[in-house]
Amino acid sequence: MSELKNDLLLKALQGEVVSRPPVWMMRQAGRYLPEYLELKAKYDFFTRVETPELACEITLQPIDIIGSDAAIIFSDILVIPQALGVQVLMEEGKGPVLPATIKTKADIDSLQVQGAAERLDYVCKAISLTKRELNGRVPLIGFAGAPFTILCYMVEGKGSKTFDKAKQFCFTQPELAHQLLQKITDATIEYLKAQVKAGADCVQVFDSWSGMLSPDDFNAFALPYLKQISNALSPLCPVILFPKGSWYALKELTNTSVSAIGIDWTITPAFAREQTSNNITLQGNFDPTKLLMPVPEIQNAVKKMIDDFGVQRYIVNLGHGILPNIPVDNAKAFVDAVQNYQA
Amino acid sequence: MSELKNDLLLKALQGEVVSRPPVWMMRQAGRYLPEYLELKAKYDFFTRVETPELACEITLQPIDIIGSDAAIIFSDILVIPQALGVQVLMEEGKGPVLPATIKTKADIDSLQVQGAAERLDYVCKAISLTKRELNGRVPLIGFAGAPFTILCYMVEGKGSKTFDKAKQFCFTQPELAHQLLQKITDATIEYLKAQVKAGADCVQVFDSWSGMLSPDDFNAFALPYLKQISNALSPLCPVILFPKGSWYALKELTNTSVSAIGIDWTITPAFAREQTSNNITLQGNFDPTKLLMPVPEIQNAVKKMIDDFGVQRYIVNLGHGILPNIPVDNAKAFVDAVQNYQA
Repeated sequence: MSELKNDLLLKALQGEVVSRPPVWMMRQAGRYLPEYLELKAKYDFFTRVETPELACEITLQPIDIIGSDAAIIFSDILVIPQALGVQVLMEEGKGPVLPATIKTKADIDSLQVQGAAERLDYVCKAISLTKRELNGRVPLIGFAGAPFTILCYMVEGKGSKTFDKAKQFCFTQPELAHQLLQKITDATIEYLKAQVKAGADCVQVFDSWSGMLSPDDFNAFALPYLKQISNALSPLCPVILFPKGSWYALKELTNTSVSAIGIDWTITPAFAREQTSNNITLQGNFDPTKLLMPVPEIQNAVKKMIDDFGVQRYIVNLGHGILPNIPVDNAKAFVDAVQNYQA
Repeated sequence: MSELKNDLLLKALQGEVVSRPPVWMMRQAGRYLPEYLELKAKYDFFTRVETPELACEITLQPIDIIGSDAAIIFSDILVIPQALGVQVLMEEGKGPVLPATIKTKADIDSLQVQGAAERLDYVCKAISLTKRELNGRVPLIGFAGAPFTILCYMVEGKGSKTFDKAKQFCFTQPELAHQLLQKITDATIEYLKAQVKAGADCVQVFDSWSGMLSPDDFNAFALPYLKQISNALSPLCPVILFPKGSWYALKELTNTSVSAIGIDWTITPAFAREQTSNNITLQGNFDPTKLLMPVPEIQNAVKKMIDDFGVQRYIVNLGHGILPNIPVDNAKAFVDAVQNYQA
């Protein structure tokens, strides 16, 4: 492996002093880039995910086009249910559907943790290939969904505003829920370890739906599994955790082995720094809709955001995934505004 | 009007000492009650809303069946766009659709604030009728949607997970957004005043989507209009504000003229009391999905919730609307657990 020419992300994650914060964008690989949409027109979703050359090409696009300070491997959090033996259908524009939802102990017993990471070897191949193609330009982020978020999809069977079925499963059959969460966790740890072995410089765990839980339920159904993953991975590489909507858990999460916490735009920099005792790297938290503002307003908002978070222990990002209708020039203006930041 | 036999809600709103907290449930009128579903099978949504006898009957059902300490008039927040001259379609099970979304200044100029409250006279008739039928058993709550939430529907044209179009409208055309918000506010104030005149004992303002906004944007697009409504109504009756998801605004909202703030289940009682300096009535915040738990667990959770909030300046409620699949016995167990509460 070649030395990293741009190691801002890793420095920020390790709490080292940087000249400016690094910037990348969630879902930067895909959606709003014309070059991605061309590939999307030719290959269906899982072909793009499962073909290392395609995943590599998509991962590199935002590095070449908008110049982010980090790449994130193009994949999907629902590869874990697939690897456990559950069918996942992806209809373009409609979101995922898992026809065989988890309902019983037998459903959970039938999940195949053994060999799950090996069945996702195509992701590791894509990571190795991407590392080679990046040739040290920027670090590469691996990722997985958090166990509670994966449970949401496996029980609900599709996206939802409120994931009531998934929560009902947790609240009325907590023993089964914990069995399922443990299986997802075990597979996820092996999967993330394989990603690091293949070349990922750090990993991010997406708990996209943890914010649907009360603080007590977060502590019961999300936190223990996040800790298991972080404790298993943090000796190997920095771990970024993004528990969307779980503003109430910031203090608790500061006392874990994660290197950084991603936050959404409902959390002010002051609140986040106070809750985390200014003692952990924060990532976020630009409202993705604000990338539709005129470029000068984006520039002002980025400057204010960095002023408010501070340059150190901070990774500039959105507070959730980039929207498909963001003009590329606006995405680039966001990245440029960070890279040209002057206090 | 007869004297109220059960004035717990009004006492809690006025900060007077009560022997136990009052309890009611958001969306208690409808959805999960077989008696409501019978009417739903016979009459379409707007017939139920616009026929005072039907709205009255539906409003009374939860008082008779589960024994809540307050009734809330059966209606819908989208009557305001209708009264302003915008078509609202309601397909059962699909949510609302507003085919003519607001896009331009001309769209806003065409809205008819003048006479809007009068066009909602059927709601006031339903309130008068319900007050008579209640005969002082419990207080009657009137309600309206908050201006930002109504803007969301008028611009987006339907429900959404993220209301990106509505937020884009606010962020890229803030002047138009404020014109629209002011028109909604003006109509809402007249509408709520008419509800009070017709007999509503207090009013609740539902800001169901304010939690999609960052604190700065809440202060720009939600708070000023909430304050206008509260300042206009609070001389007439207590005002309850439910800004779902806007946990970050609790401190700010304490310094307004509202009598109570509704909170969702992501907010712990301790955080809410601390942010509000233990100086305002709080309403909430049971996770609606938890009504699917076995009755003894509901009872324990209700007891713990009251212990944690405290008996005074507290109104027991859910943290959002009741789900359609809640067994009536469980809803009744929730109410009973409050009414039988022993410290």
